[in-house]
Amino acid sequence: MEEIDFNKKLNISIVGLGIIGGSFALKLSELGLHYIYGIDTNAESLDKAKNIKAINEGFVDAKEPLSKSDIIILCLYPNDTLNFVQNNMPNFKKGAIIVDTVGIKTNIINNIHGILRDDIDFVGGHPMAGSHKVGFDGAVKELFNNASFIITPLDVNKASSIEQVEAIMKQIGFGKIVKTSPAVHDDTISFTSQLPHLVSISYMNSCKFDDVSGLSSNSFEELTRIANINANLWSQLFLENKENVIEKLDSLINELINVKDIITAEDKDALIDVLNKGKAKKEELSRNAKVND
Amino acid sequence: MEEIDFNKKLNISIVGLGIIGGSFALKLSELGLHYIYGIDTNAESLDKAKNIKAINEGFVDAKEPLSKSDIIILCLYPNDTLNFVQNNMPNFKKGAIIVDTVGIKTNIINNIHGILRDDIDFVGGHPMAGSHKVGFDGAVKELFNNASFIITPLDVNKASSIEQVEAIMKQIGFGKIVKTSPAVHDDTISFTSQLPHLVSISYMNSCKFDDVSGLSSNSFEELTRIANINANLWSQLFLENKENVIEKLDSLINELINVKDIITAEDKDALIDVLNKGKAKKEELSRNAKVND
Repeated sequence: MEEIDFNKKLNISIVGLGIIGGSFALKLSELGLHYIYGIDTNAESLDKAKNIKAINEGFVDAKEPLSKSDIIILCLYPNDTLNFVQNNMPNFKKGAIIVDTVGIKTNIINNIHGILRDDIDFVGGHPMAGSHKVGFDGAVKELFNNASFIITPLDVNKASSIEQVEAIMKQIGFGKIVKTSPAVHDDTISFTSQLPHLVSISYMNSCKFDDVSGLSSNSFEELTRIANINANLWSQLFLENKENVIEKLDSLINELINVKDIITAEDKDALIDVLNKGKAKKEELSRNAKVND
Repeated sequence: MEEIDFNKKLNISIVGLGIIGGSFALKLSELGLHYIYGIDTNAESLDKAKNIKAINEGFVDAKEPLSKSDIIILCLYPNDTLNFVQNNMPNFKKGAIIVDTVGIKTNIINNIHGILRDDIDFVGGHPMAGSHKVGFDGAVKELFNNASFIITPLDVNKASSIEQVEAIMKQIGFGKIVKTSPAVHDDTISFTSQLPHLVSISYMNSCKFDDVSGLSSNSFEELTRIANINANLWSQLFLENKENVIEKLDSLINELINVKDIITAEDKDALIDVLNKGKAKKEELSRNAKVND
């Protein structure tokens, strides 16, 4: 059996045509460089995607498209991602590259590598873009423009697989490809993404007002935008990354208690110090982001 | 002595040419409807403002412009606002209207009404717009466009004074004038504005990373933007509204501890419930804002 030539037009399966998978499909079909299969349990989403030419063909049964696909992009919830790979293990084409898009990497990568066939490669991925919308109707081809795509390579990954995923994601419009370990990814993401979502939800749950219109401004809108959360997805992500999330929650709670104690004591000097310390940290992160971007 | 005719071209003093006062000056001078005095302890700011025609005349000594001003807009820090009114009590023109812009209303209004001359009116105000920038160089004439201006009228205020402040603020471009009591203002603002700033600062102070570039997205930027805080100003505002701020901090801390306990217990159903409850609260506030806007 011959090797896949990744320089040719590829067959790409997108599994799960929700907001992420749908946006991948819309962008890839617009590029027209590859042949796109859509795989979804929802036949209606497949029909919609086919009708607007976001995919070339749609399948509820994954067997046929997987047997022909050089690259498989999994756009499923964490639990479904593992189940899909497990249930379809015999169906993947020899030499295929599977890339996932789950927001937490350590568990999913360990679980999948534990059951993976030797002749296929699995690359952990995380597109740093999203939307409060759910399903194919919310998908837009611009979703990933200028966002970063995180790859968490392992020693067992072939270098060529990582390069191939990188190339596809650049074609799709990601502005930056970041490579890091699954552990660093999960630790950092628990702070930069998971904690803000838990803060936004907790802030809303602590709200005693029915209406704050006219009595709020940008800072309120920015803090509450992500309270519009997909509870089924995010509950999985929080539990998948439990230790990191709890560590970050603890640190934040301690800082909030600290500033509360300072205000209670009316210790103005300490309060100014705390505010300036937070401001300096923000400035440090902004500086380092500019250097590294 | 004749009454001021507020339908004529007015003399307006803007006290404090920082980001707020400077933006008022730029917008009012562009409108060209009134004669604008700038009052500031910093002669350099006055020169800059005069040179770009943001004010007609600038004064370090407030006595002369105050004696001629029909309306005085105070754009000073909380502590300076009270001191300025107290120190200049003999200097105000008979019948003048003073409006302030301090972000907390109960204390400032009580303090000023306790010392106010009978022949002048003091109206509490709060422009719901700001910037992380400091000083006249950060001022822009568009700062207040479509923002809301909150007025906290008291029974002792003349109805005509409230109307006059409302008229000026509409001229300046505010999209909405909201009237509420000082107590409701301070309670609500402690939640919608002060708590987000303390959360942003505490979040930054809990950050153990030196660099998160490529590993963060919009939610991180939105939560941390306001960590770029003016510590001298905000420390006064937090302490001025201590009881309300502590109440809101307590509620948020309790919610964060609650969600932490749920994640620790891996109680997925409870976690989904908490996320959906926060999402529902966000949706309720968005609905009510649309009805009332």
